Amino acid sequence: MTDPTARTAPESGAGVLELLHRFKNDPAAADRYAADCLEKTKAAEPVLKAFEYLPVDVTRRPGPLSGIPVAIKDIIATSDMPTTNGSPIYRDHIPAKDAWVVERLRSLGATIFGKTVSTEFAWRHPGPTVNPWNHAHTPGGSSSGSAAAVAAGLVPLALGTQTLGSVIRPAAFNGVVGLKPSFGAIPRTGVHPLSPSLDHVGLFARRLDDVAYALSLLAASSDLDPHGRPLPGFQIDPDRGVPPLQNPRLAIVRFEKWSKAEPEQQRTFEAAIVKLRDAGAVAQELELAELDSTNWHAINIILASEAALIFSDLVARYPDRTSDHLKSAVQAGKGHTAYDYLAARALQEKLRSRLPTDLSGFDAVLTLPAFGEAPKGLGYTGDAEYCAPWTLLGAPAVALPAGFGNNGLPLGVQIVGSYRQDYHLLRVAKWVEGALRFDPGLPRL
Amino acid sequence: MTDPTARTAPESGAGVLELLHRFKNDPAAADRYAADCLEKTKAAEPVLKAFEYLPVDVTRRPGPLSGIPVAIKDIIATSDMPTTNGSPIYRDHIPAKDAWVVERLRSLGATIFGKTVSTEFAWRHPGPTVNPWNHAHTPGGSSSGSAAAVAAGLVPLALGTQTLGSVIRPAAFNGVVGLKPSFGAIPRTGVHPLSPSLDHVGLFARRLDDVAYALSLLAASSDLDPHGRPLPGFQIDPDRGVPPLQNPRLAIVRFEKWSKAEPEQQRTFEAAIVKLRDAGAVAQELELAELDSTNWHAINIILASEAALIFSDLVARYPDRTSDHLKSAVQAGKGHTAYDYLAARALQEKLRSRLPTDLSGFDAVLTLPAFGEAPKGLGYTGDAEYCAPWTLLGAPAVALPAGFGNNGLPLGVQIVGSYRQDYHLLRVAKWVEGALRFDPGLPRL
Repeated sequence: MTDPTARTAPESGAGVLELLHRFKNDPAAADRYAADCLEKTKAAEPVLKAFEYLPVDVTRRPGPLSGIPVAIKDIIATSDMPTTNGSPIYRDHIPAKDAWVVERLRSLGATIFGKTVSTEFAWRHPGPTVNPWNHAHTPGGSSSGSAAAVAAGLVPLALGTQTLGSVIRPAAFNGVVGLKPSFGAIPRTGVHPLSPSLDHVGLFARRLDDVAYALSLLAASSDLDPHGRPLPGFQIDPDRGVPPLQNPRLAIVRFEKWSKAEPEQQRTFEAAIVKLRDAGAVAQELELAELDSTNWHAINIILASEAALIFSDLVARYPDRTSDHLKSAVQAGKGHTAYDYLAARALQEKLRSRLPTDLSGFDAVLTLPAFGEAPKGLGYTGDAEYCAPWTLLGAPAVALPAGFGNNGLPLGVQIVGSYRQDYHLLRVAKWVEGALRFDPGLPRL
Repeated sequence: MTDPTARTAPESGAGVLELLHRFKNDPAAADRYAADCLEKTKAAEPVLKAFEYLPVDVTRRPGPLSGIPVAIKDIIATSDMPTTNGSPIYRDHIPAKDAWVVERLRSLGATIFGKTVSTEFAWRHPGPTVNPWNHAHTPGGSSSGSAAAVAAGLVPLALGTQTLGSVIRPAAFNGVVGLKPSFGAIPRTGVHPLSPSLDHVGLFARRLDDVAYALSLLAASSDLDPHGRPLPGFQIDPDRGVPPLQNPRLAIVRFEKWSKAEPEQQRTFEAAIVKLRDAGAVAQELELAELDSTNWHAINIILASEAALIFSDLVARYPDRTSDHLKSAVQAGKGHTAYDYLAARALQEKLRSRLPTDLSGFDAVLTLPAFGEAPKGLGYTGDAEYCAPWTLLGAPAVALPAGFGNNGLPLGVQIVGSYRQDYHLLRVAKWVEGALRFDPGLPRL
C-alpha cells in the first residue's frame, strides 16, 4: 500500500487524498484546515482576485469528502451564494437551486468554498484574476479563479468547465492538474450553458489522484441532462489512489501547429518524452491529419451557433452589460446555416467514434496543453487550439505540470484518451505523473 | 387471471400473446403458424404489395418471442435480407450487420418475417402498397407495408419508424394498434436516419397487449445510439398482459385544426368519448396553445435541416434515382439558419419538459391520429399534423382502432402520455381499448 502523504512535499500544498488520510485520524484537523484555507484566501485575494464570493460557513459535514474545501466556478449555481456567471447582469443573482454537481458535493461532505472568477459566461471576456506565478500574466480562462486558487494552495480542489480549453489551458498556465472528463461524465444541470454540445464540467487539483477520486464520486447520470450517462464504473480506494498503468504506449501528437509553440514549451515537451521513455514508456509519433485540419473550424461553428441562440436575447436586452466580444460573437454566430452546423456535429460524431481506431496500439495521446506560458496581460486568456480537438471529441484529457518557462510561469503536457475511457486515461496519467517527477511547488504571492 | 385467448374473435387475426399462449402448449403449432403466414402472404402480395422481400427460412428459435413472425420495415438493416431503404439506390443492398433491434428480435426467438415497403427513406415518396380495406386508397406511410401486413392478418407484429407520423397514421388508416414509444426507447442503430432528433422505432400489432409486450422486450440502452436509455422498468407477464389503469382521466386535445377533420372522424371521436365516459373515464377538454401554434413549424425546420445533411450527397450523386420530393426537400432544408434550427430544438426541449405539468391532473391525452380515412390514391400518404406534436416532444403515443368511415376505411383515436412514461400510457390505452369494445376484424383481400 502506498502512503499518499509520502508523495507530497510539505511546501507544495496538501492534496485531497493526503488531507482525507490526515482527517481520518484527526477530525479536528479538518476544521483547522478549513479555517486556515479561509484565512490564507482572505490574505491572498487583494492580489490574486480569484474569488467572486467567499464562504461564510466552513462547517464540516460527514461523507467521503468530509472537510475538503471545494471552490466552485461562478457559472455553476449555488443556492446559498451569488452566481454571477461572470457577468454584471447576474451580479446579485442567487439561484433557487444548487447545480446538480454542487448538490452532489454537499452530499459527499465537501465544503462549498466560495465562487471563483470566470470570464463572461465562460467565454472570452476576462475577469480580474492574476496568474499566481507572475501577476503581470493571465491565469488563462475561462476557469481563471479555480485554477489560480488551487495553484496558490488556497483550496485542494476546484470545479471548472471547458467548452474550448477552459480547464486544460488554465491548469497548464497555473501548474496544477486539470481533468476534463468525457463529455457528459459529470451532469451539467445548473451550469450556465455556452454550447451544450461542447460544455464539460471539469476539475482542478494538485495531484492526479485527487481529480481521479473526485471524478469517481461525481460521474453520474442525471435525467435532467440527457447527455449524462454513468461512465464504465471505476472505484478508487482513497488510501491507494489510482493504480498506475505501467510502461504505457503513448502516441505523440504534435499537429501542424507545433511550429507555433514557444521554444521553451517545445523543449519541455521533448524533455518529458525523454523522461517517459527512460522510465519505460513507449512513445511514438502519430499524425491525426483529418482531426488536425478540421477540428478548429468545426468546434467554432458549433460554439458560435449554439452560443448565438443562448445569448441573443441577453445582448439585445443588456447592450451596456455585455462585452463587445459577446455582442459580436452572437452576431457572427447567427450567420451560420443549419447545414454547416449539422455537418460540424456529424464530423464531431465521426471523429469521436473513430478515435479508438486511430489510437489502436496506444494507451493515450501525449500532446501540448497550450503554445507555451500564460500570455502577458490580463486582456487575453490564451489560445485553445491544442485543447479544441479533444473537447470537440468529448475525449477525456488531463493536464499535468512539466516545467517552467522563461517568465517563471508553468508549462505542462496534456494526455488524452478515448471517449468514456476515463479510467484508463487516469491510470496512464498517474504513471506519467510519477515518471515526470515534477512538482512546481507553491508560488510566492 | 385474464385468458388472452378469450379476447380474440377468431376472424380478427391472432395476437402475439394469444399465439405465445397457444405455442406454449403446442410447439408444433408455431411451425404450422409460420408456414401459414408465409402462404397467406404469398397469396396476398400480388394485390397488397406490402413486402419488399419475403423470408426464405421461417425456422423457429427459442426465446420469449419464439415462433412469432415479425415483419421489418425496409429501412431497418438485416444482414440476411436486402434492405432497400425504399430507394432504387439500395435495390440490391444487403447490410453487413443487423440493426440493433433486429439482432434483439432474433435473440428473443422471433422469426424475422421479411422486409416491408417503406416510402423513399421513410419520407414522402410512396411505395406500391395498397390499403387492405380499400385498394384504391393509400395505406399511409412511411411504414406502409408494416401497417398493411398486420391489418391483413399476415403477421401479428411489425416494426415501423416514425419521424413525423409514420407509425400512428398508418396504424389508424389500417385499423391496427400502433405504438410510437418515447424518443430513444428502442435503439436506432442500423435504422436509416431521416432526422436523428425525431426518428423513433415503433410497433404495429392487433392488440394493445402485443405492442406493450414487444416494447418491454425491445426498450434498452445502446452505447452506439447516444439517445438510448432504458425506460423506467416495466415487465409484462405474457399470460396476463398489461394491467389496465381503471377510470383514467383523459385530456381531450383537439387543437385549432379540429375543424379540418372529416365529419365522420369527428363523429367517431365524439362517440369514443361517450363510450369512455360511460365506462367510467373522466374526459375533459384541454388546450395546449403553444404546442398547437408552434409544433408544425418547429418539427419541419428540424426535419428539413437534418435530412438535408443526410441526403445531400445522395441526391447529388443519384439525381435519376431520387424523387423530386427528396431533391426539393434537400434544397429547401439547406436554406435554414443554425439559429432557427437550434431555436426549434430548444423549443422541442422546453415543450417536452413542460408536458407533465401541462397534463397535471390527467393520465393521458385523447386526440385524433389523423384528419380522417386514408386518402384516395397511392400518391399521397396523408397528413401528419395530429402526430407531429407528440413526435416533436418524443412523447409515447398509441393509435387504437375506433370505427369505420364512409369509404369502408378504418378510423382511430390517439392516446398520448408524457415522455418516458410509456408504461403508464400503455395501462391507460389498455383500459381504453377495452372500453371502446371495437374490433375491425380482417379485411377481405
